[in-house]
Amino acid sequence: MAGNSFGTLFKLTSFGESHGELIGGVIDGCPAGLNLDVARIQAKLDRRKPGQSGISSERKEEDLVRIHSGIFDGITTGTPIGFTILNKDNRSKDYAHLKDVYRPGHADYAYQAKYGLRDYRGGGRSSARETAVRVVAGAIAEQILSVFNIEIRAFVQGVGKISLEKEVDWESIPDSENNTVRCPDLKTAEKMKKLIESVRNEGDSTGGVIECRIRGLFAGLGSPVFDKLNALLAHAMVSINAVKGVEFGSGFSSAAMKGSRYRDEFRIEGGEPKYSSNNSGGITGGISNGNELVFRVAFNPVTSIPKLAKASNTSGESQSLSVQGRHDPCVVPRAVPVIEAMAAITVLDQFLARRSDKI
Amino acid sequence: MAGNSFGTLFKLTSFGESHGELIGGVIDGCPAGLNLDVARIQAKLDRRKPGQSGISSERKEEDLVRIHSGIFDGITTGTPIGFTILNKDNRSKDYAHLKDVYRPGHADYAYQAKYGLRDYRGGGRSSARETAVRVVAGAIAEQILSVFNIEIRAFVQGVGKISLEKEVDWESIPDSENNTVRCPDLKTAEKMKKLIESVRNEGDSTGGVIECRIRGLFAGLGSPVFDKLNALLAHAMVSINAVKGVEFGSGFSSAAMKGSRYRDEFRIEGGEPKYSSNNSGGITGGISNGNELVFRVAFNPVTSIPKLAKASNTSGESQSLSVQGRHDPCVVPRAVPVIEAMAAITVLDQFLARRSDKI
Amino acid sequence: MAGNSFGTLFKLTSFGESHGELIGGVIDGCPAGLNLDVARIQAKLDRRKPGQSGISSERKEEDLVRIHSGIFDGITTGTPIGFTILNKDNRSKDYAHLKDVYRPGHADYAYQAKYGLRDYRGGGRSSARETAVRVVAGAIAEQILSVFNIEIRAFVQGVGKISLEKEVDWESIPDSENNTVRCPDLKTAEKMKKLIESVRNEGDSTGGVIECRIRGLFAGLGSPVFDKLNALLAHAMVSINAVKGVEFGSGFSSAAMKGSRYRDEFRIEGGEPKYSSNNSGGITGGISNGNELVFRVAFNPVTSIPKLAKASNTSGESQSLSVQGRHDPCVVPRAVPVIEAMAAITVLDQFLARRSDKI
Amino acid sequence: MAGNSFGTLFKLTSFGESHGELIGGVIDGCPAGLNLDVARIQAKLDRRKPGQSGISSERKEEDLVRIHSGIFDGITTGTPIGFTILNKDNRSKDYAHLKDVYRPGHADYAYQAKYGLRDYRGGGRSSARETAVRVVAGAIAEQILSVFNIEIRAFVQGVGKISLEKEVDWESIPDSENNTVRCPDLKTAEKMKKLIESVRNEGDSTGGVIECRIRGLFAGLGSPVFDKLNALLAHAMVSINAVKGVEFGSGFSSAAMKGSRYRDEFRIEGGEPKYSSNNSGGITGGISNGNELVFRVAFNPVTSIPKLAKASNTSGESQSLSVQGRHDPCVVPRAVPVIEAMAAITVLDQFLARRSDKI
Repeated sequence: MAGNSFGTLFKLTSFGESHGELIGGVIDGCPAGLNLDVARIQAKLDRRKPGQSGISSERKEEDLVRIHSGIFDGITTGTPIGFTILNKDNRSKDYAHLKDVYRPGHADYAYQAKYGLRDYRGGGRSSARETAVRVVAGAIAEQILSVFNIEIRAFVQGVGKISLEKEVDWESIPDSENNTVRCPDLKTAEKMKKLIESVRNEGDSTGGVIECRIRGLFAGLGSPVFDKLNALLAHAMVSINAVKGVEFGSGFSSAAMKGSRYRDEFRIEGGEPKYSSNNSGGITGGISNGNELVFRVAFNPVTSIPKLAKASNTSGESQSLSVQGRHDPCVVPRAVPVIEAMAAITVLDQFLARRSDKI
Repeated sequence: MAGNSFGTLFKLTSFGESHGELIGGVIDGCPAGLNLDVARIQAKLDRRKPGQSGISSERKEEDLVRIHSGIFDGITTGTPIGFTILNKDNRSKDYAHLKDVYRPGHADYAYQAKYGLRDYRGGGRSSARETAVRVVAGAIAEQILSVFNIEIRAFVQGVGKISLEKEVDWESIPDSENNTVRCPDLKTAEKMKKLIESVRNEGDSTGGVIECRIRGLFAGLGSPVFDKLNALLAHAMVSINAVKGVEFGSGFSSAAMKGSRYRDEFRIEGGEPKYSSNNSGGITGGISNGNELVFRVAFNPVTSIPKLAKASNTSGESQSLSVQGRHDPCVVPRAVPVIEAMAAITVLDQFLARRSDKI
Repeated sequence: MAGNSFGTLFKLTSFGESHGELIGGVIDGCPAGLNLDVARIQAKLDRRKPGQSGISSERKEEDLVRIHSGIFDGITTGTPIGFTILNKDNRSKDYAHLKDVYRPGHADYAYQAKYGLRDYRGGGRSSARETAVRVVAGAIAEQILSVFNIEIRAFVQGVGKISLEKEVDWESIPDSENNTVRCPDLKTAEKMKKLIESVRNEGDSTGGVIECRIRGLFAGLGSPVFDKLNALLAHAMVSINAVKGVEFGSGFSSAAMKGSRYRDEFRIEGGEPKYSSNNSGGITGGISNGNELVFRVAFNPVTSIPKLAKASNTSGESQSLSVQGRHDPCVVPRAVPVIEAMAAITVLDQFLARRSDKI
Repeated sequence: MAGNSFGTLFKLTSFGESHGELIGGVIDGCPAGLNLDVARIQAKLDRRKPGQSGISSERKEEDLVRIHSGIFDGITTGTPIGFTILNKDNRSKDYAHLKDVYRPGHADYAYQAKYGLRDYRGGGRSSARETAVRVVAGAIAEQILSVFNIEIRAFVQGVGKISLEKEVDWESIPDSENNTVRCPDLKTAEKMKKLIESVRNEGDSTGGVIECRIRGLFAGLGSPVFDKLNALLAHAMVSINAVKGVEFGSGFSSAAMKGSRYRDEFRIEGGEPKYSSNNSGGITGGISNGNELVFRVAFNPVTSIPKLAKASNTSGESQSLSVQGRHDPCVVPRAVPVIEAMAAITVLDQFLARRSDKI
C-alpha cells in the first residue's frame, strides 16, 4: 500500500533509492508566507550526512538540496514544494555480489517476499539514505514552528551501555553539537566516542538512544482517540530506520510506578499550568498539556559491518558475508536531525489542525 | 483534526463517551464472505470489561455488542458494520464535583485547552471505555486473520517491578487466561496479584507491561517508508490509553547490543526463512520477515485512585481530590484484549493491502 | 475499499442498510462550541423523507435522528458525533422474491459481482435511504457555515422535459419550499407536478435537475490541483444515488462559448471583487473566487416502478418484474436537502482547512 | 489543505509551476513487476504537448519525462516512482506586467485570496502545464490495466457548437488520432478544425466536449457510498483545468427520460451480463456493472486570448489586457490524453482495491 507519505495538512511524500540517481520529496500543504531560509535546511542536512568525522562512515555525500517549486521570491506560496538531492556516491557495482544473497539484519528478504523482486544494488528504499528527505521537510516544518516559538532539541542519550545519568537541562542541549557523538555532557561524550571507536576497530557496530524535547508547544495539540499526539510521534519515530522502540516521559519505567507518584500535579498560574513533575512527557489523553514534550527513541546497531556474518543465498545455501572497507559503527549521532525532523513534521501537522478545533 | 478512524482498507471509526448513553463504531472495508462468530466477539469484550475479579474495578458493565449493519444471514456483506454498546453504568452525577477541577494525570486540562470546553461528567473520550469499541473491531479482524492461520496472543509480562524472567513459549501463552492477571507463569502471576492487592489496599495503583506475539504472518506485510509495519503498530499501541512506550523484538536493549550479535541470521529452507534469533521482532526494513512478530507495550498506573492528590481548579486554586469507593488498581490485565485487537486491525489492514503489491 | 467516509477535517462516516434495523453515521472533526439546533436537523430530515405528499412514495418513515455522543449541554464538544435513525418501515419479506433476480437499473448485479453475495432484502446500501445520514451531517455543517453567514440554497430546476427558463433570484429560492416539487416558480411547479402525476399513473417515473447556489463564501476555498472545490463538489454530488451529471456555472454550454464571452470580468471594489457575469460558477482554478457558487445536478428516473421490466435471474433466465403498490415517480424534490447537505459538508471541510493556508 | 495527491492504493502526488524550472510527480503504490514501456509514456506526453499543429499554441515544449526511482532493470519495484519534466519554455519575463493585475477567467485573484500572495509569473499551479504530470502517471496506470485487457479510449465529441451526431463505434475511436482535433469522424473533424481556425483568427477561443470509454472492466469496481466509481471519476475529471461539467451514460438527458426507458435491461449469458442499452454508462449503484463505461466532459474556452479584456488591477483600477502573440484557440484536443490519464488512475486504484473486497 502506498506508504511514502506522512502527515495530513503538512504532508511529505518521499521517493528515491540509495543507489539511484537522486532522492527527493514533495511537501504538500506548507502554509504560504514563510520566508524560507535554505541555508538552515542545508545546515540540518549537513548534520545528517555521512563522513562528518572519524566515527562515522567514510562514504562521502554532498547532500545539496535543490528546491524546484513552491517558492517565489524566497517565500513559500502554498503550492507543493518539490525538492531533490543528488546521490553522488552511488557506486552500484559495489553491490553486484549481493544479487543472490539475503543479508542478515537487512530488508533484502522482506522486500523480495513483498514485491517478488528487489533492487539489489544496495538498501534502496530500506537504506537510511531516504532520511535525508525527511530532514529537508523537517527543517521547513521547524522554521514554521519557530515563528510560533516552538523549539525542538534532540541529543544522544545513550550509546551501547553508556548512558547519561542525569536529566539534561534544556539550555545544555545545544552543547551536544560541540562533539561528534552529539551528547551534551562532554565526559559521557568522550566515553561514547571511545566505545564507538572500539566497536569500529572490531569491525562491529553499536546502537544507542536519542532523547527529544519540545518547548513552547500549545496545550491542545493531538487528535484522540487514534491520532493522539504521542501515537503520531510513535508512528513517526518507528518509521525511521533501525528504531526499535519509543517511550514518552517516564516511559517503560512508568510500569513500575505507583499512580500516586506517576500523576503529574499542576496548578494553573496566570492561566498556564505549572507542573511539579513530567512523567506524562507533556501529553495527557493524547493531547499536549503545556508541559515540555519529552520522548526517547532506541536504535539497534547497524548490521552492515566488516565482521563476518552467515548469510543465506536465495537458493538456501549458506555463505559468509562481510562489508568491505568503510562502515558506520554508530549511526545514532547522525540520526539526531532525523528525529528532530520527524518530530517537527508531526507537531506542525497537529499545530495547523488545531485551528479547526473550535468554531 | 478528525482522529477517530484507524486503518485504510479495514477502517474503524469510533464514537461515544464513557458517560453518554452508548459507545459504538463503524468498520468500513470488512471483506465480504466471513461467517461472523458474534459469540467470539462477545468473549473478547468480556475479557476487557471491568469487574472480572477482585483485582479490578467494581464498576459493573455488561458490554453487550449490538451489530446494526453489514451482516446478512450471519455473513459479512462488505458494507460497513455499524455497532453499539450501551453504557449501563454511566452515573454521571458522580462527577458533578469535577466541573471546575482539573484532575492530575487526567486529560481534563488538555481537553479544555483544545476545545475550549469539556464534558466533565467523566473521562468522556479520554476514558478507557472507548477501547471496548476497538475490541469489537479487533475481534472481527482476528476472525478474518484466523481464516489464514494468522494468530495473535498477548499476555501480561510485568506488573510494577515484577516481571517474567524467561521468555514465554508460544504454547504457554493461553495459560495466561487461567488467572486474573493474565500472566502465563502461575508463580509470577501470584506475585503480581499480591502486588495489585497491596496497592489497592493503599488506595493506589500500579502500571505494567504486555507482550504481544503474532504467528503465521506472511513475510511481506508493511508499507515503507512511513507506514512500516512496526510504525503502524507503534501508532496503534500508543493510541491506547495509558501506554507510555512500545518496543519491538530486542527493543530498548538493542541500543546496548553490537551489530554482530543483533542481526538475526537465517537460512532459506523449503522456500521459507529459518531464523536463529529474533532481535528484529519479526520485522526488517518495516516489512514482516517471516519470523514471529514480537512487541511489548508499557502502561502507566491509572491516576483515578483514592489516595489524595493536590489538584488545581480552573481558577488556579488548589484543592485535595480523591476517587471515592471503587477503583481499578491495575488495568493492565484488562488491556490484553485491547492490545490484541489493535494488533489485529493493523495487521489485517496490511494483509489486505498486500494483494496490490504485485501485478 | 472502505468508501463510506467523506471529508477530511469534517468527516462523515456512514453505515446501515435500507432494510436493516437502523442507519447511522459518525461525524468526526466537528468543531467544538456550536450550540446545536436539533430541530433544524430534524426539519431538514423531514424535507427528505418519503411520503411528504401525493407525488412521492407512500412508504412512511418517521426519520427521527438520535444523537448519541459529541454533544454536552447542547453544545458540540469536538468529539465524534454518533447518530442513528431507526428504519421503521423495513418490511423485508416484501423482497423475498428478489433473492434470485437482478433488477434492471438496480445495483443487484453489481453488488453480487463485487462481493460474491448480496443482501437481497432491498437496496441495502444502494438504496437512497442512506442519504438520510448525509442530511443529518449536512444540517450540522450548515449550522456551522451559517455562523459565518455562508448560506446554501437548492431547488428543482427541471423535471422531465419541463425546465425553469429564467435564472432564479437568490431571494426567490425559498419559495420552492411552498410547493411539493420544490420549484420556486409556481407556474412551472404546477406543470412539473402534473407531469409527475402523469408518469405515476402510467406506473412510470421521471428524472430531473436540481440547481444549488451558495452565498457568503470566502474567496480562497479549495485545494488545487486535485482537490479543487469544484472537483470535491463533483465527487460529493455524483456520490448521491441516481445522479448522472454535474455542471458548474455555464457548465456544458461553456463548450459552445467563445473565450471572450466566457471569461467573467470583474473589478476590485472595496477590497472585494465585483463580477459582471458568472460563467465560472464562482470557482476559478479550483478555488472559490468570491462570486456566487452555482452548480446543477442531473438525476435519472428511478427504476423501481410498476411498469413491467424484463429481468434476468441469477441463472440467466428471463422473467418479468414489477414493483407492486407504492412507488416514487420522481425523487428529485426529496433530493434537494441531500444536495444541500453534501454541498455543506464539502464547503465546510475546505472552510476549516483554509485556516492553515497561510502562516 | 494538501490537495496535490490523487488515489489511495495507486497514488499520484504532483508538484511544479508552469514557469519554474521543472514539474514532476511521485507515483506511490505502483505494483511491482510491470515491464515499463517508457516510449509509451512519452508518446502519451507528446499527444498532450503544445505546438502539435497549427491549431494549437505555438509555445514549444519538449516534454521529456525523466524517471528517477522505482524502476530497476526496466521493471517496477513497488517503490515510489519519482519523475520530472523540465520546463523548457518558461520565459518568466513575459509575465512581469501581470504582477499587479488580476486576469479575468484566470485564477490570479483566487490564489491571491487563498494564500495572501501569488507567483505572478504565469499560471503557476493553475496552468494546464501540471496536467503533463497526470499524463505520465496515467500512462503507467494504463500499462498495468492493459495487462488485464482493460482499455481506455477518448476522443473529441464536440468543439463549440459542432458535435458528433452519431454514437461512435469503439473500433473507430483510434481514427481520432489521424487528425489534429482528435475527432474520429473526418467530416466533423474538418468542421471543427475550421471553427478553431476561425476563432484563432478572431483572437478568440472555443470550448468543447470529450467522450471517454472504457472496455474490459470487471464488474464490481467502485466503493459505495461515497467513493462510487462515477463519483471518483467525476472528482478526477473536474480536477482538470477548464472542466465545467461531467456526465455518465445518458447524463443530463436522463433527466428527461422515463424510468421504463432509462433502465438498462440485461440478461446473464455465460455468466456475463449482456445489456440491451447503456444509459447507466456502465455503472450502477456506483459499481461497474460489466457494460462499457461511458462519460463525457465539458471544457470551457481558454481565457488567455489576444482579444482585449477589461481587467482589474490589485488596487481596483480597470485596465485593458491582451495576450500577445501565440495563443491556444482550443485546448480540447490536447486534453484527450489527460482525460484518459485521469480515467486510468481512477480505475486502476479501484481495480487494485477490488482484491480486498472478499475474503
